[in-house]
Amino acid sequence: MSSKKYVYDFAEGNASMRSLLGGKGANLAEMTGLGIPVPPGFIATTEACVYYSTHGAYPEGLGEEIEAHLRALEKQTGKTLGDPSNPLLLSIRSGAVFSMPGMMDTILNLGLNDETVEGLARGTGNPRFAYDSYRRFISMFGDVVMGVDPQLFEDALTAKKEEAAAALDTDLSAEDLEDLTLRFKSILAENTGEQFPADALKQLHMAVVAVFRSWDNHRAKVYRRQEGIPDDLGTAVNVQTMVFGNKGETSGTGVAFTRDPSTGENRFYGEFLMNAQGEDVVAGVRHPRPLEELRDVMPEVLDQLYAIRDKLENHYRDMQDIEFTIEDGKLFMLQTRNGKRTAPAALRCAVDMVGEGLITKEVALARVDASQLDQLLHPRLDPKAKYEILTTGLGASPGAAVGRVVFDADEAEERGSRGEKVILVRWETNPDDIHGLIQAQGVITSHGGMTSHAAVVARAMGKPCIAGAQDLKIDTVAQEVRVGDKVIKAGDWISMDGASGKVILGQAKLTEASIDENVNTVLSWADDVRRLGVRTNADTPEDAKKAREFGAEGIGLCRTEHMFMQEERLPHVRNMIMSETVEEREEHLAKLLPFQREDFQGIFRAMEGLPVTIRLLDPPLHEFLPNYTEVMLELERLRLTGASAEEVAKQEQLAGKVKSLSEANPMLGTRGCRLGIQWPEIYAMQVRAIMEAACDILAESGKTPHVEIMIPLVGFQQELKLMRELTERIAAEVLAERKVNVDYKVGTMIEVPRAALTANEVAAYADFFSFGTNDLTQMTLGFSRDDAEGKFLTHYLRTDLLKANPFEKLDQDGVGQLVAMAVQKGRSVKPELKTGICGEHGGEPSSVKFCHRTGLNYVSCSPYRVPLARLAAAQAVLEEKAAAKVGD
Amino acid sequence: MSSKKYVYDFAEGNASMRSLLGGKGANLAEMTGLGIPVPPGFIATTEACVYYSTHGAYPEGLGEEIEAHLRALEKQTGKTLGDPSNPLLLSIRSGAVFSMPGMMDTILNLGLNDETVEGLARGTGNPRFAYDSYRRFISMFGDVVMGVDPQLFEDALTAKKEEAAAALDTDLSAEDLEDLTLRFKSILAENTGEQFPADALKQLHMAVVAVFRSWDNHRAKVYRRQEGIPDDLGTAVNVQTMVFGNKGETSGTGVAFTRDPSTGENRFYGEFLMNAQGEDVVAGVRHPRPLEELRDVMPEVLDQLYAIRDKLENHYRDMQDIEFTIEDGKLFMLQTRNGKRTAPAALRCAVDMVGEGLITKEVALARVDASQLDQLLHPRLDPKAKYEILTTGLGASPGAAVGRVVFDADEAEERGSRGEKVILVRWETNPDDIHGLIQAQGVITSHGGMTSHAAVVARAMGKPCIAGAQDLKIDTVAQEVRVGDKVIKAGDWISMDGASGKVILGQAKLTEASIDENVNTVLSWADDVRRLGVRTNADTPEDAKKAREFGAEGIGLCRTEHMFMQEERLPHVRNMIMSETVEEREEHLAKLLPFQREDFQGIFRAMEGLPVTIRLLDPPLHEFLPNYTEVMLELERLRLTGASAEEVAKQEQLAGKVKSLSEANPMLGTRGCRLGIQWPEIYAMQVRAIMEAACDILAESGKTPHVEIMIPLVGFQQELKLMRELTERIAAEVLAERKVNVDYKVGTMIEVPRAALTANEVAAYADFFSFGTNDLTQMTLGFSRDDAEGKFLTHYLRTDLLKANPFEKLDQDGVGQLVAMAVQKGRSVKPELKTGICGEHGGEPSSVKFCHRTGLNYVSCSPYRVPLARLAAAQAVLEEKAAAKVGD
Repeated sequence: MSSKKYVYDFAEGNASMRSLLGGKGANLAEMTGLGIPVPPGFIATTEACVYYSTHGAYPEGLGEEIEAHLRALEKQTGKTLGDPSNPLLLSIRSGAVFSMPGMMDTILNLGLNDETVEGLARGTGNPRFAYDSYRRFISMFGDVVMGVDPQLFEDALTAKKEEAAAALDTDLSAEDLEDLTLRFKSILAENTGEQFPADALKQLHMAVVAVFRSWDNHRAKVYRRQEGIPDDLGTAVNVQTMVFGNKGETSGTGVAFTRDPSTGENRFYGEFLMNAQGEDVVAGVRHPRPLEELRDVMPEVLDQLYAIRDKLENHYRDMQDIEFTIEDGKLFMLQTRNGKRTAPAALRCAVDMVGEGLITKEVALARVDASQLDQLLHPRLDPKAKYEILTTGLGASPGAAVGRVVFDADEAEERGSRGEKVILVRWETNPDDIHGLIQAQGVITSHGGMTSHAAVVARAMGKPCIAGAQDLKIDTVAQEVRVGDKVIKAGDWISMDGASGKVILGQAKLTEASIDENVNTVLSWADDVRRLGVRTNADTPEDAKKAREFGAEGIGLCRTEHMFMQEERLPHVRNMIMSETVEEREEHLAKLLPFQREDFQGIFRAMEGLPVTIRLLDPPLHEFLPNYTEVMLELERLRLTGASAEEVAKQEQLAGKVKSLSEANPMLGTRGCRLGIQWPEIYAMQVRAIMEAACDILAESGKTPHVEIMIPLVGFQQELKLMRELTERIAAEVLAERKVNVDYKVGTMIEVPRAALTANEVAAYADFFSFGTNDLTQMTLGFSRDDAEGKFLTHYLRTDLLKANPFEKLDQDGVGQLVAMAVQKGRSVKPELKTGICGEHGGEPSSVKFCHRTGLNYVSCSPYRVPLARLAAAQAVLEEKAAAKVGD
Repeated sequence: MSSKKYVYDFAEGNASMRSLLGGKGANLAEMTGLGIPVPPGFIATTEACVYYSTHGAYPEGLGEEIEAHLRALEKQTGKTLGDPSNPLLLSIRSGAVFSMPGMMDTILNLGLNDETVEGLARGTGNPRFAYDSYRRFISMFGDVVMGVDPQLFEDALTAKKEEAAAALDTDLSAEDLEDLTLRFKSILAENTGEQFPADALKQLHMAVVAVFRSWDNHRAKVYRRQEGIPDDLGTAVNVQTMVFGNKGETSGTGVAFTRDPSTGENRFYGEFLMNAQGEDVVAGVRHPRPLEELRDVMPEVLDQLYAIRDKLENHYRDMQDIEFTIEDGKLFMLQTRNGKRTAPAALRCAVDMVGEGLITKEVALARVDASQLDQLLHPRLDPKAKYEILTTGLGASPGAAVGRVVFDADEAEERGSRGEKVILVRWETNPDDIHGLIQAQGVITSHGGMTSHAAVVARAMGKPCIAGAQDLKIDTVAQEVRVGDKVIKAGDWISMDGASGKVILGQAKLTEASIDENVNTVLSWADDVRRLGVRTNADTPEDAKKAREFGAEGIGLCRTEHMFMQEERLPHVRNMIMSETVEEREEHLAKLLPFQREDFQGIFRAMEGLPVTIRLLDPPLHEFLPNYTEVMLELERLRLTGASAEEVAKQEQLAGKVKSLSEANPMLGTRGCRLGIQWPEIYAMQVRAIMEAACDILAESGKTPHVEIMIPLVGFQQELKLMRELTERIAAEVLAERKVNVDYKVGTMIEVPRAALTANEVAAYADFFSFGTNDLTQMTLGFSRDDAEGKFLTHYLRTDLLKANPFEKLDQDGVGQLVAMAVQKGRSVKPELKTGICGEHGGEPSSVKFCHRTGLNYVSCSPYRVPLARLAAAQAVLEEKAAAKVGD
C-alpha cells in the first residue's frame, strides 16, 4: 500500500542503518542479528518522524505498518496488547542518530489499563508490582503524551503517602497504589478535559506521536543548536517488549562498561541491583553492587554477560557501555553504545586495543580526542571532587592550581620563592609583574581577555590563567576581593581551573599531569601518519627546550619584543625611542645589540639542527613607554605639589613624547614593518644580532643554525622588498666581517588581509609565508581581541550568535578563505613557497586540520600544545583518507 | 641591411604613430602631412632609444639610416651639413610619448664649426648673428653632450662682458663673440680632455646619443616615477632643419593658443617678438607683443597663421598650443600640441566645441578633467598671485580662505559672527569647537589626519581645512604660532589652500567659485551618459538640500551619530550610556526619540521622492563621554585640593564608567551593530524615530519617503539577521499604531572584510549592500586612519612606497578585490541586490570609475563632490566603450 517502508523489525535492521533507525535502534537490531538476547520489538524510522514533523500527521501507511509489526510481535511473544489475560506491555523510546541524552521522551509500561493491570497482577502473582507499574504509566503518559504538569502527580503521591503514613514509595501497599491510579486518572481528566485512553492500541499511536513531537521541543532544539546537530534529521521510535528486573529475587538490572572507563584497564566493570528497575540504578536510591558479585547470585548470568562483552568488543572494536535486565533469571540486553571514558582511559584503551589486534593504529589515532590529550598535559580538577564555584571567568590558560590569594607581584615572588603556593589575583597584569607570575601557581585577573598580558604570559609558561573574571571586586587597600556578598582575604585558599575559567573557594583536589607511555606511543603513531610539520612559538631557550621535548620540529615564531621588555634592557629601549636623531637612536641600539645577540645564541643552541623563524620587532613603540594617563597624573601631581620647574619640564617632555607616540588604534598603527621602514636602524640592529649570533654558533659548534628572518605586518609588496633589501645588506656585511657563510631565508607574516589578497605580488620577495592568524582574525573580522573578549564577543558566544571564539578556533568560513587564497596565489608564482601558521590557532585541533587541508607545510604553537597539534595533524590525514573513500 | 626601420622622415609619419615617434615628432609629421609649413627633418624612433638604453650602443643600421635621411634632407634644403659655403644647421630635440617638459635635452645650431660659422656669416650677411649662434652651440653641446658644468661658460661670458664694458649680451660685438667661442672651446678641452668636435656628422651622432642618454638621467626618472610613466618607453629624437627668427626685422618668433587658455573664449590668443628666438619669448628678457599686432608688421603672415589655426583645430578637434618662427618673412610651424587650460577654459572649450560641431558631447565629457571641475566648486588661490608659503600640511578639505588667526573656538564664533574673517588654528578640534568652525573661514590643525574631526566636519561644511601641519608650534598661552623662526600672532592675517595644504603668510588673492552654465551643461550631458547613480552623504536637511542642488539622487549615507553630539542632546546621550539597567537606558532614550524623529522629518522633507539611507548608531559609546585622561586629571585635582568626599566619589564613578567603556582599539571594538546587539533598545529607539518620522511626512505631504535602514559593521550573517528582525518588529509596531503603510528596505554596510568574503551569506538578509570603503580600507590594509596620516602613511607617500593615499583613492588591487568579490557573491544569491559605496572614495574619480566597472548601482559622496562623481561616472561609460572598441 505505502510505497515506502517506515517500520523495521529489530531482526530486519543493523548498525549501519543508524541514520534511518537511530543510534539506539540500530544497535538493538545489530545485537539481535548477533544472536544476543534482546527483548523483541520494532522501530519507526526517522523518515516517519521527519514526515510527521513537516505534515503534522503520519505518512500514508505508517499506522498499518505499526499494527502489522505489532501483530508479529504478539505472535513472537505469545502476548497480546490490551489482552487482560496475557497482556503485552511495551516501552516506547526515542532514538536519534546522534545521542541527545534526556532531551526527548520515553514511555514505559504501555498497554496497561484497568483490565490489563489485573492480568499483569495475576500473571506475575504480584498485584503491588502491577499497580505500581500502572500508576507510573499513567503519570508518565499524562506528562509526556497529554501534557499534564508532572508536579500534580507528585503532589498526589505525597498526599497519599501522608494518608497511608508511608515514609517511602515502597511502603505503599497494592491497594494504596490502586487508589492512586484512580486519583491520577482524575487529575489527567481534570487537566486535559479528556479521559485516560483505556484502549492500548490508541495508547501506542498516541505515544509514537508524542515521541515524534518531542523532536521539536524547546530543550531538544536548544541542545541541537549547541551541538551543531541538524534540525531535519528526526528521531526514530523504538517500540520494545517490556522486561522487568523488579519481578523478584531472580530478576535484576545493571549497567556495565566492557573496560574500566576511568583508567582504561581491560577489566569488565559494572554494577547491578537485584529486584530493581533501571531507573533505580540511575537514581541512586539503593546502593548497587559491583558486577563481580553477580557471581555469588547468578554465576551463569555473569558468564553469559562475559561472553556478550567479548562478542560486543570484538564486533564493535571499541569499549562498550551496556545496559541489561534479568527477568526471572533470563538475561536481556537493552542497550549498547560506545562508552564515554576519561582522558587516561581513552589513551590506554587505544594503545591496548592496538596491542590486542582489535584495531589498527590509524583507528586508535582517530579515536583519541585532542581535548582529552590537552587535559593530560596539565594538572586538572579531580572530576569526582565536590567544590564551591565562586565565579567563572575566561579560561585563558589551561591547568588547575591551588594557592593562597596574593594581590601583589612582589609578595607573590617573596612567598612563592619560599615554597608557599600562591595565586596572584589582579585587575590586570603588566610586564612589571613577571617576577610574581613566575613564582605563582596561577593568575586570575578581573579584566582583559584571552590575549591580555596575563593570558599570553601564562600560556607561554604553561601556567593556569583565568582572565576577565568581572565579578571579582578587588580592593587592594583592604587586601580583599569580594564576589557578591562573599569576601576573600589575602592569604585565604582558593583554587582555579584555567581550562573552564572556574574560580573555586578553598583547596580543591587536583589530579596531576600524566604524560605517560601511552601518550608517547600514540604521538609516535601520529608522527608516522601526519604530513604537516609541527613547530613551536618560543621566545626563550627554556621554552625552546621544553617544546623540543614535546616534539616540536623547529621554531615557527620567535618574538623579539619580549626580549625588549626585560628589566636591564627597557631603559635602553626607552632611550632609543625617545631619541631625536638617527645617531642618538643608533647609539642606544648599539647597547641593545649584545643582549639580542645573546638571546639568539641561546635559542640557536637549543634548536640545533632545526629551523628558527625570528620575527623582527612588531609592537607599537609606545608599548615600551609608560602609560600616558599615568604620566599626565604624575605631571599634575608635580605641578600641584610645588615641584621644581626643572622636574615639571622633564615630565612635560616625557608627556609630549608619549603623546606623540600614542595612537588611537595601535593595532592598526605604527608597528610591524612600518617601524622598520621609518627607522631602518632598529631592524638593522636586529638583523645584525641574528647574523652575528648565527656566526658565533657556527664557530662554536661547527653547525650552521637554520635562520629564517620574518618581516611582520606586510600589506604591500614594496614593504617586503625594502625590508628584504635591508636584511640582505646587513647580513652581507656581517658575513663579510666574519668571513663565513650562513644561509638564511627571508619571509613574511601574512596577517594583513591585503597581503593575502595580493599574495602573488608579496610572494616575489618571500621565501616563506607565515600566517599570523591572530592579527589576520582581528582585521578580517574587525575584532580587537583586547576589546572583544569579556565584552561583545563574550555576549556573542553567550547568546549563541557565534559558535566558537574565532581567536581559539580559526574562522574557516571567513579568515580561512584568505589563508587558502594566499597559499594558492603565493604558490601560483612561487611553487616552492613554504607556508605555515603561527597564530594561536596552530595548536587548536580543528584549525590544525584546516591547515592540513589547505596544504600548509607546518603549524607552530605554544610548547604545551605541540602534542595536540601532532595528533590533530595525523587525524587530518585519516579524515582525508576517509573522505576519499566515500568519494570512491 | 637592418631588418627594422629606426628613422622616419616627417613626411613618412603621422599623429597616430605617437608611441614610435614621440608626441612632438608625431605632430610635426602630422602637420607636414597636412601641408602646413614645417622645417623639414626626420625622427629616430623610441625603439632606437630603448635599444640604446639596454645595449649602450646604436642598434644595427641606425647610423646608416640617420645618414641616409641626412642626405635626403640636404637634397631637400639644398644645404649640406658641414659645408662652409652653404651649411645645413640642425636642432636635435627629445620627444617622448608622454610630455616630460624640461626633463630631457635639446641641442640647437648643430653643424657649426670654425668654417661653417663663416659660411653662416656670409649667407646671412650677419657675422654677429653667426658667432652668437656658434658660442651658444658650443656651450650647449659642452653642457649636454660632453658634461661640462654650464656655469663655467656663464662665468666666461660675464668676464667677457666686463672686459668689453658691455651691460647686456646684445652689447657684445661679433668680434667679442668670436673671441668667446675660442674661450669656450678651451674650457671644453680643459674640462673633458677632448677637443670640441669640428666634424658636423660626428656632432650629430654625439647629440643623438646624448638625447638617448637623457632618457635615463636622474630628474627624468624621478619625474616618470611621480607621473606613473613606465621606464621602458624611451624617447624619440627629432632632427630638424634650423630656422631663425633672429635674422633681422622680417624674422620673428611666437607662441599662440588657438583659444584663450584662461577663459576658453574662442579667440586666437598669442604673443610674438620680431628678430628673436623662441627662448627670448620664454625667458621674458624682451617684452612680447600681442599676436594681433602682427597685423601691423606682417599682415599676410598673420592671415596665414589664422588659416593654420583653423586647419589645426578642425584637424585635431581640440584647442592647440603652437610655436612658430618667421624666417625672412617665411612662416614655419615648430610645434603643435593640445593646449593646457584653466578649469573654466576647459569647461568653456568643451561646451563651445560641441556647439560648433567640432566634437561630440561624449568627446567633450571625456576631455573635462575631474580635478578641474573640483577647482570650480571652491574658491581657490589666484594662480597668478605670488605668496609666501609658511608651511604645508595635509590638504584635508579643498577651497582657499583668508582670515585672521584665532586660537579659540569661542573667539572664532564671536569675531566671525561680527563679520570678521577668521581662520581657526588649533592642535586639533573636537565637537565642542563646532560653533567656532561654523563662523570661521577655514580651519588649520597641527595634528590629526584626513579624517580627523576637523577634516570630516570641514568637508561636510564645504569649508577649507588643512590638517596635521606639524611644523606649526602653537602656543595658546602666548597667543602665537611659530614656524621655525617665524612668529604669527593672534589677529595676524594668513591664507590657506585646503586642496594643496599650503599655509600662506598674509592675505593671498583668491578666485571665487564659479558653477556656471558651462558646468551645468557638461554635467547634464554626463547624466545622459552615466549608468551609475550618484547620491550624497548628508546628516542634516541643509546638507541634503545643497547636495540636491548639485544633482544628488538621494542620500546614500545619513549618519545618526552627529545628531547625538548636539549640545541639547549630549546630556541625554551620556545619561543613557551611564545607565546601569535597561529600564534606565530606555528612559533616557525616550528623551532622545523626539530629537531624532525631528532630524529625520527634516531630511525626508528635503529629499522628497528620493531614497534616504539612514545608518543606525555606529561609533563606540565612549566617543560621547569625556576623555579618560581628563577625567583622571580632574579626579587627581579634586583629591589634591581637598574636595569633599562626595565630589571625589562622584568623579570616581565617572572615571570607572569611562574606563570600563574605553577600548584599546575602538575602531575594532564595541561599535556598529555590536552596540545594537548588546543594547537593542538603542537601535529600537532609532528605528522608531525613523518610522514615526516617515509616517509624519506621509501624513503631511501625502507622499511616502523612501526609507532605507542600514545596519553598520556586520561581519556575520547572524548579526544582520538579528538586527533585521529587530527593525521589522519595531517598524511593524509603528505602522500598526499609525495605521498606515510605509515601505522600507533594510540593508547593511560592507566594511568588515569578513562581510565581503561571506557576502553570499550576508545577502540573504540584505536588501542592499553599501560599501563603507573607509572602514574596509582600514581593516583590509590594517591602517588606522587616525594613526596613519601624518605618520607612517605620510612617510610611505613621501618615499614613494605608495603612489596614492588609499583613503583618497580606493586601493583597487587590495580593497577593490573585496568589493568585487562581495558584489559577485551577493548577486549570486540575490540578483536584484542593490549595491553602492558610501566611503569618501565615492567622490574620487578613479574610484568612481572602479565602482562603475565593478557594476555597483550608485556612489554616494559629500555634497561638494557630487558634480565630480556625475562626471566621473559618465567618463567611466566612455572609457568602457573605448575599451570595447579596442577589443573589437
